Amino acid sequence: MMADTQPIIVLVNPQMGENIGATARAMLNGGLKTLRLVAPRDGWPNEKADAMSAGALELINVELYDTTAAAIADCHAVYSTAAMQRDMVKPILTPKGGVADIQTRLNQGQRTAILFGPERSGLHNQDVLLSNAMISIPLNPEFSSLNLGQAVLVLAYEWSQSVYNAPDRVLPTGKSMPATAAQFDNFCDRLQTLLEEKHFFRVEEMKSIMMGNIRNLFVRAEATDQELNTLHGIFSALLGKKKPPGEF
Amino acid sequence: MMADTQPIIVLVNPQMGENIGATARAMLNGGLKTLRLVAPRDGWPNEKADAMSAGALELINVELYDTTAAAIADCHAVYSTAAMQRDMVKPILTPKGGVADIQTRLNQGQRTAILFGPERSGLHNQDVLLSNAMISIPLNPEFSSLNLGQAVLVLAYEWSQSVYNAPDRVLPTGKSMPATAAQFDNFCDRLQTLLEEKHFFRVEEMKSIMMGNIRNLFVRAEATDQELNTLHGIFSALLGKKKPPGEF
Repeated sequence: MMADTQPIIVLVNPQMGENIGATARAMLNGGLKTLRLVAPRDGWPNEKADAMSAGALELINVELYDTTAAAIADCHAVYSTAAMQRDMVKPILTPKGGVADIQTRLNQGQRTAILFGPERSGLHNQDVLLSNAMISIPLNPEFSSLNLGQAVLVLAYEWSQSVYNAPDRVLPTGKSMPATAAQFDNFCDRLQTLLEEKHFFRVEEMKSIMMGNIRNLFVRAEATDQELNTLHGIFSALLGKKKPPGEF
Repeated sequence: MMADTQPIIVLVNPQMGENIGATARAMLNGGLKTLRLVAPRDGWPNEKADAMSAGALELINVELYDTTAAAIADCHAVYSTAAMQRDMVKPILTPKGGVADIQTRLNQGQRTAILFGPERSGLHNQDVLLSNAMISIPLNPEFSSLNLGQAVLVLAYEWSQSVYNAPDRVLPTGKSMPATAAQFDNFCDRLQTLLEEKHFFRVEEMKSIMMGNIRNLFVRAEATDQELNTLHGIFSALLGKKKPPGEF
């Protein structure tokens, strides 16, 4: 048996087909591909689920179970989701904390599952008790109102973050590259010469400070070589050194 | 003017009222309370938006603008959201990176806004160009399909995480407390005595190892004082030392 590489999503007694479809769509957005359904109210398959899933239901595995116990029987660690705190001594994890815990367990070869309860009531306490920990989404305490698909989306999003691991910030520069220090030197030297010719610097000792600040502006913008070339062209145009179109 | 404490959400030319309602609901779940609408297709107010918002529209501020430029005119930093990378040299942040950046700017007294485009096309390039950075949600590259309300939810969730700052793991113990070391001592000492009386330990030198492992199990479970008391009661019952109910 191949070790699992991601958690199983378990919907316990889901009521509306639309929400099963929204769950599938949310899951696949996060790259999650195994869904277990425990006794869905309106049976299975379900046309409304298909319609809501934006094609996701065809791309994930859906397994049907009669009871929660059967759906998690082969799982080494189970997480329950609940909007309300229950009166039990059970660890409460954030989605981020839960995903980190799941990743650790997957690396140890464990099978994991996340339980979501029916729309109206949420998970029953007896199902929560079966779980190792609860996952609770930190929301506005004065307005916490996520539907089933939205709750699955938050978990799937945290999962996706842990997998795709995008850098918090990236600057795509396409075909151009950030300007090199020598290109900034060249740009600033030329600008300084032009400004000297136009008697821009009234106070000699301010010259290097001003040029430093101007360089700082363009360095901070992470100007590309192409952008510096455009600025060179602008200077030439302002100086009247470029010929109007049509002239040679 | 009071400094802003949270980003403004701007929907540019939203098409369906339902999505404006879903946006309001998503926002308020994250505690976000200012929504600016740029020329919504079906006008404003919108009954379908009300129906979809689960009451959130009545609890947030909605402001109407004719153009994106007008909606962001008073903002010091603007973030655009887009599913697709655009052909421009513009920083791309994750939702988490974007929220961190927004928090930093709010602390500096800046007003910030996050732009979301119309459902079908997403933001036009000219609107993206007005922004300081793009925010892109890291999703399954083979299936990235979030609707408007879902995209807003992910941002609102990240915002909420940064504000409510829940610990990644907490163990609520209710009225009881985690057992103290002395309570574990007492529990283990009693168990050892009982097991000695029943000749449980066949090999004397294994005794302390076994008792250490048993203590480890209950310490690892972070057993509460109440739970240890329950276990004490179970031992007494197994020994026949508890009277049946009704007997005194």
